[in-house]
Amino acid sequence: MVCAGQTGLMADQHAAPASRSGSSAVPALRWEDLPEGPVIVLLDQRRLPADETELICTDVPALIEAIRSLAVRGAPLLGVAGAYGLALAAVRGFDVEEAAEMLAHARPTAVNLAYGVRRALAAHRLALRAGAGPEKAAAAALTEARALHREDAEASADMAAHGLALLQELLPGGGYRILTHCNTGALVSGGEGTAFAVAGAAHRAGELRRLWVDETRPLLQGARLTAYEAGRAGMPYTLLTDNAAGSLFSAGEVDAVLIGADRITADGSVANKVGSYPLAVLARYHHVPFIVVAPTTTVDLGTQEGSAIEVEQRPGHEVTELPATGTGTGTGATASVTVAPVGAQAYNPAFDVTPPELVTAIVTENGVLSPVTEAGLAELCDRSRSGNGMMSI
Amino acid sequence: MVCAGQTGLMADQHAAPASRSGSSAVPALRWEDLPEGPVIVLLDQRRLPADETELICTDVPALIEAIRSLAVRGAPLLGVAGAYGLALAAVRGFDVEEAAEMLAHARPTAVNLAYGVRRALAAHRLALRAGAGPEKAAAAALTEARALHREDAEASADMAAHGLALLQELLPGGGYRILTHCNTGALVSGGEGTAFAVAGAAHRAGELRRLWVDETRPLLQGARLTAYEAGRAGMPYTLLTDNAAGSLFSAGEVDAVLIGADRITADGSVANKVGSYPLAVLARYHHVPFIVVAPTTTVDLGTQEGSAIEVEQRPGHEVTELPATGTGTGTGATASVTVAPVGAQAYNPAFDVTPPELVTAIVTENGVLSPVTEAGLAELCDRSRSGNGMMSI
Repeated sequence: MVCAGQTGLMADQHAAPASRSGSSAVPALRWEDLPEGPVIVLLDQRRLPADETELICTDVPALIEAIRSLAVRGAPLLGVAGAYGLALAAVRGFDVEEAAEMLAHARPTAVNLAYGVRRALAAHRLALRAGAGPEKAAAAALTEARALHREDAEASADMAAHGLALLQELLPGGGYRILTHCNTGALVSGGEGTAFAVAGAAHRAGELRRLWVDETRPLLQGARLTAYEAGRAGMPYTLLTDNAAGSLFSAGEVDAVLIGADRITADGSVANKVGSYPLAVLARYHHVPFIVVAPTTTVDLGTQEGSAIEVEQRPGHEVTELPATGTGTGTGATASVTVAPVGAQAYNPAFDVTPPELVTAIVTENGVLSPVTEAGLAELCDRSRSGNGMMSI
Repeated sequence: MVCAGQTGLMADQHAAPASRSGSSAVPALRWEDLPEGPVIVLLDQRRLPADETELICTDVPALIEAIRSLAVRGAPLLGVAGAYGLALAAVRGFDVEEAAEMLAHARPTAVNLAYGVRRALAAHRLALRAGAGPEKAAAAALTEARALHREDAEASADMAAHGLALLQELLPGGGYRILTHCNTGALVSGGEGTAFAVAGAAHRAGELRRLWVDETRPLLQGARLTAYEAGRAGMPYTLLTDNAAGSLFSAGEVDAVLIGADRITADGSVANKVGSYPLAVLARYHHVPFIVVAPTTTVDLGTQEGSAIEVEQRPGHEVTELPATGTGTGTGATASVTVAPVGAQAYNPAFDVTPPELVTAIVTENGVLSPVTEAGLAELCDRSRSGNGMMSI
């Protein structure tokens, strides 16, 4: 038993070995109604691939701690987590508006988190305005969270299909050698994920020759999570340090780059895990398609351009220290080893921003946008947003 | 006491705490005459920055083990090590020709290693041909090794001066923000190093605003060694993951890239630590000078172009495992932690190759070459090679 986070009176987060049923993967996130009340159960991604441990969050501070420490991560899944978190506060009788405020700002860059919170909050407010009591309003928030979860799974399937069709069009020879960065599979989504879901579809179609997996320093989500998911799916994959990608491009070993996104601004700028932008520049230099796969919930039409995105700066110790056990990420939950001189200063942005002119295509659940234009992006988003009123918290 | 390498009958390599005299840095390599016979004493770079431990090599297999495991590394220093290694075999009465063959091929990419071996071997052969006995021939080899060591220190100083003059010309505003990769300081040279020596000169001139230090995965020579040297020199430095360099370029925070080289071919292609080529592409995209600093001993006029360079492929475990103590590099000498799934395959080239069209200038001890042309490179090398007969082993 590890108690990863105690952040205040409401904080209650437990760890337990994941219960496995047959060969099915442990879900990244689920809602569970226990006799003591509902909880959000997370697969602790900091401890993968060595341990499949679940974190049980009984309140919003515990969930926020899990979000900040990257026990749960990935843009689409953060949206789902935010919605469930709001529902959890409502069902458990905490202050819903306060919970929404805290949750929406747990991490600054991924727009999906605030989006998920807003969706559940809107449902809650609407129910209250319609005269519902707290219990019914909470149920409405939970229903909305479940709807978002389901939509996200469906969006994954649609992105995978659109992405595969795009690859078939761009690379008619088949046998794709795809380079990916960070982790964009089932661990970041209610479904199969974003960029990884496209690679998975290519694999099932017999067209994935090689998945090149960037290790993705500093927290090694590629080495720990994408390699884990690729291995489970039986995909032919090879791990590399982020800086070895240049050698692959140079040798003509990359047919396409597929990445996810944490936020896409109105002009088509893409914030994603740090290291994405250098890949975009390399791809351009080598005339290789650079493809972003993300649900339209990732698009932030309220932010005009990439320079307006707040990029999360994470602690330097993620760079200067390495995990000393196979189950940690250097985020503080486990023992670590200092590799740099004591007191070394580190620059550690979590994300970088790729301008639209370097993006060959954006694949969403509503279709593919190529070339990336502001009007095209707005139009793609319009197709799915009609039913979801946007509101500020 | 740690015995890092036992590779056969001749292997004899011991570790001992480094003896420090005052505030002076421990030299990366020195020849010492002990009562039991001469030895080569190396600062064990695998254990920095946590421990300053010296490795004592009494024979060539121990030295080769130290070279392969990167206890001693860096192109110019490998040349010096190769020459002393040859002298060690000669003085200790081992088969000199066999030792030369083994040493020259200990690592395939750095041309300096074979160059240093050839220099000492040539002196040895020459002495024998002139009628000298084994003892005098061995002394001639040692004299040649010492000459190379001294020349390398002088070359460092000359490169630093030429490099600083180049920066002053390219960036007349001063206050340089320099990005560097891997380790190119006193740990790789008989002197102050190559690229790092230029940054050091800029620092002493009061013109170094920031040294951006790439951590340099997989073995973290930037985090472990360059940060250590920069800290000792009182330079303003900041460490970053290799893939965060793109964010710095994008934000206009890099005025120049300074790197070393492990081999430069006749056409000006530069083999250097993996991750150098992506920096060259980023530098070109952002119109930032990309400057290679290397002694002419790094130039291999016998190899026409970059594609002909044999790039050392290192074991995948350097990528899939991290050091579990602060004193290791994941090269097997210390405990390590697996971060990727068991059995994960990794692509781990030690170097990449940057074509001449991406190199703004090559700084050597003989002067600066810009633009990089085949004729200009040959001319630069001519200035220093007249006295050194080249021969094959």
